[in-house]
Amino acid sequence: MSESISAQVPLRAVLFDVFGTVVDWRSSVAREVQAALASHSVSVDSEAFADRWRALYQPAMSRVRSGEIDFVPLDKLHRENLDQVLAEFSIDHLSESEKVQLNLAWHRLDAWPDAVAGLERLKSRYIIGALSNGNIALIVNMAKQARLPWDVVLGAEVARAYKPQPQAYLGSAQALGLTPGECTLVAAHNDDLKAAAQCGFRTAFVERPFEHGPDQKSDRTADGDYDYVALDFVDLADQLRC
Amino acid sequence: MSESISAQVPLRAVLFDVFGTVVDWRSSVAREVQAALASHSVSVDSEAFADRWRALYQPAMSRVRSGEIDFVPLDKLHRENLDQVLAEFSIDHLSESEKVQLNLAWHRLDAWPDAVAGLERLKSRYIIGALSNGNIALIVNMAKQARLPWDVVLGAEVARAYKPQPQAYLGSAQALGLTPGECTLVAAHNDDLKAAAQCGFRTAFVERPFEHGPDQKSDRTADGDYDYVALDFVDLADQLRC
Repeated sequence: MSESISAQVPLRAVLFDVFGTVVDWRSSVAREVQAALASHSVSVDSEAFADRWRALYQPAMSRVRSGEIDFVPLDKLHRENLDQVLAEFSIDHLSESEKVQLNLAWHRLDAWPDAVAGLERLKSRYIIGALSNGNIALIVNMAKQARLPWDVVLGAEVARAYKPQPQAYLGSAQALGLTPGECTLVAAHNDDLKAAAQCGFRTAFVERPFEHGPDQKSDRTADGDYDYVALDFVDLADQLRC
Repeated sequence: MSESISAQVPLRAVLFDVFGTVVDWRSSVAREVQAALASHSVSVDSEAFADRWRALYQPAMSRVRSGEIDFVPLDKLHRENLDQVLAEFSIDHLSESEKVQLNLAWHRLDAWPDAVAGLERLKSRYIIGALSNGNIALIVNMAKQARLPWDVVLGAEVARAYKPQPQAYLGSAQALGLTPGECTLVAAHNDDLKAAAQCGFRTAFVERPFEHGPDQKSDRTADGDYDYVALDFVDLADQLRC
């Protein structure tokens, strides 16, 4: 822990980016895509499908961030993106109810193996919360299935803003009655952490070098001056003395 | 369980009124008032103080409900009410920081003895959440101390409306991606349950006959046609087959 951190006010809340940081979206979505299409005897590169679906995530949120459209929950953006990817892959076999179900794949993502154990330890000493662009229903349903023991679900739908807009971080701290300096963001993404730091949050980088598969290029390592850099959530719990 | 309920869509979320239903605000606040004033050698009828503080709760929220003032979190209304009660009791001994601390008494309320055990059982089968007029920080801090295992904190601050306004119930169900009929409100208060039922929620009355002390007159028993009437949360868990 650096000199500057120990001189700060005490840490109260450990808030997490979720997609990629807490859960392995790529494998989970690919598995669901494969299952949904197998029943129609359609074969697809399900990881490429998952990657393309995810690639439309930032552009979709940009329309909200720019003010082009009003805030809408991520479920709705995911569905618009699903329709686009299905068209790009020339798949027109799914019924409306099958598309609704497949869109909920994002509610059923598997946690990384260390996540639950690390969260349980961190929860013993700090408020732990989701600070995700995922909507409340998505994060709650995911938590029930993956046994993520959140104290609170914050992030985009509570703050009515998508990260990396400052309001997403500031509105989440404010909802806890805390200053940004009493909160740390935990993320596997450098951009997210730098935006949080700009708002006065502490920062913890956790390595998830296979979030995007074996050939991942970006975010393999920490490239900023973060308060903590951890191998996984158990290592983070050690560093935070939980 | 009535015929009409069993024919409905499955229950997914059990959402709780908190003050009086989950926690014993009166004893807890009285204890904190007594402790805060004892250090100034001031003696007060601390239960009368707690009752008066609570009596100002509904009128304060009415100013938001009527549109007289914009939505503000309950912590702010509690503080305005505290200042008024201190004046009424002619107590001017507390410093600003002592008043800030005393206002947080509402974040440190004790759970009724059956609450945690019942919630743990209900959580095994359903989403359990706070649907309270308390703000997010208040409910989260209370949960950390009293070990209330909420899956999600909903209610006034998420819906930007105070119960019994319909938006408080409807906005909470919507945040879970559920229809009102997939949710039940649990409360010890007839008015709260009737307002929720008007919105299409299922209803569960839990008896808390001593919320207002030994001479409680109102809400001693269920006076409506509720889906469930339970002695406590353990009885409710039995009835919901958890």
